[in-house]
Amino acid sequence: MSTRFGQRLAAVVADRGPLCVGIDPHPALLAQWGLGDDAAGLGAFADACVAAFAGHAAVVKPQSAFFERHGSAGIAVLERLLAGFAGTGTLTLLDVKRGDVGSTMDGYADAYLAAGAPLGADAVTLSPYLGFGSLAPALDAAAKAGRGVFVLARTSNPEAPGSSSPSPTGVRWRRVWSTPRPTATPARPAGRRRRGRRRHPRPRARPGRAERPGARARAGGTGAGPADVATRFGGVKGLVLPAAARSLLAHGPDPAALRAAAAALTAELTA
Amino acid sequence: MSTRFGQRLAAVVADRGPLCVGIDPHPALLAQWGLGDDAAGLGAFADACVAAFAGHAAVVKPQSAFFERHGSAGIAVLERLLAGFAGTGTLTLLDVKRGDVGSTMDGYADAYLAAGAPLGADAVTLSPYLGFGSLAPALDAAAKAGRGVFVLARTSNPEAPGSSSPSPTGVRWRRVWSTPRPTATPARPAGRRRRGRRRHPRPRARPGRAERPGARARAGGTGAGPADVATRFGGVKGLVLPAAARSLLAHGPDPAALRAAAAALTAELTA
Repeated sequence: MSTRFGQRLAAVVADRGPLCVGIDPHPALLAQWGLGDDAAGLGAFADACVAAFAGHAAVVKPQSAFFERHGSAGIAVLERLLAGFAGTGTLTLLDVKRGDVGSTMDGYADAYLAAGAPLGADAVTLSPYLGFGSLAPALDAAAKAGRGVFVLARTSNPEAPGSSSPSPTGVRWRRVWSTPRPTATPARPAGRRRRGRRRHPRPRARPGRAERPGARARAGGTGAGPADVATRFGGVKGLVLPAAARSLLAHGPDPAALRAAAAALTAELTA
Repeated sequence: MSTRFGQRLAAVVADRGPLCVGIDPHPALLAQWGLGDDAAGLGAFADACVAAFAGHAAVVKPQSAFFERHGSAGIAVLERLLAGFAGTGTLTLLDVKRGDVGSTMDGYADAYLAAGAPLGADAVTLSPYLGFGSLAPALDAAAKAGRGVFVLARTSNPEAPGSSSPSPTGVRWRRVWSTPRPTATPARPAGRRRRGRRRHPRPRARPGRAERPGARARAGGTGAGPADVATRFGGVKGLVLPAAARSLLAHGPDPAALRAAAAALTAELTA
């Protein structure tokens, strides 16, 4: 990975559209595909996803929780899934939402972001509950390895902090959700903002820039559809990766049907 | 596990004192013990910890990040470590700080808290960044399986939200840190508060009760020592699990030396 993640992401989105395929092998979906709720079923699910999307989708987003629930055997399947996408041009965004401090954050960086990380993805999600600065070891590791980081900011969860309340990270929220003319300042591509800087970022001094929105419309879970991306994220549309998981995965397990469903959704998104 | 976690915790702390032994196999510690920074070295480290502390320590707290950094092979060691402590009377508090919403939170509950969970511990840590209510599936699973949950609230990380700022969970902070007379209301034992309740907790309606403090003085990392537990947490001392990792683990790899160091620290804490 000689280029930075932000460059790779921009290139693949320009080429294939912005669709991020969520890989969420939850128990009901395994059953729907006729697979057992065990590591073998999970492995078959993962292999079908690689067959369907590798080299075709712009970005895939495996959800770590659905691999962790099968223990170490499930994590072995996750390693195989990530290896299956590596080098195919399809970027992996591993949804782990890790967040901790000090040497523990170093540990997570080693696991997911450092060069040679056993669970290395093109990018991961992180949670800033303990402060945005606490994520610095991960941001440093990502920058060195050419990987990316999506930090949770404002989410669509109704119970999450409101847009009028202070952000736990100390960064003032910009409106992104639920407005036809969002005022969010486009953030720099992930992985880019730390270039030339050695130590901790100072999110307070740069409101609107410390976090990449990484916002995603979930076409399935929240009932949002492709049209909502334009109305809700109009001003920052180019920075949004709309994610779809269940609405797409319901077309499985046939890889060709999965791929066709993703292509149809991509066409809607880019229309 | 027929009894609730809170009951088991109270009993073991009454019997053995409150010390929580942090199991943090970070690279420098592996090297200090003459072990390789790989899954084999991690396995030897874990086995020594089981030999030293199982049946002796009240609580051990493995840090998941240091197992995840060895990928699926590291998670297999974590499974072995948890199995090694199961049934010995020493409780396991697995530090994973997971937090997500909906079926993803179900996935984490399946991984760590449900009956038969592959990485089942006596208790885990969770992060409420997406809202305290989003953790409900994990709290439900824990209550059913007799396990416990420690939810991050106010931490000692200087960059975390100040005690005067609103909590991201919507619960008003009570002062715990840095005051000789803390005003924190003692929370009910973990796992107890949901008894008889079926659905989502309502943290806003019960300030001071929605979160168990789960506060821990880190005798190593932050320079706090046994005496600080009394001065900083005097009013809630009985609810505090002071954790020590590096200051103890530096006595390894000899299990007898590790056990002796833990006993000495326990004596200081209970003096």
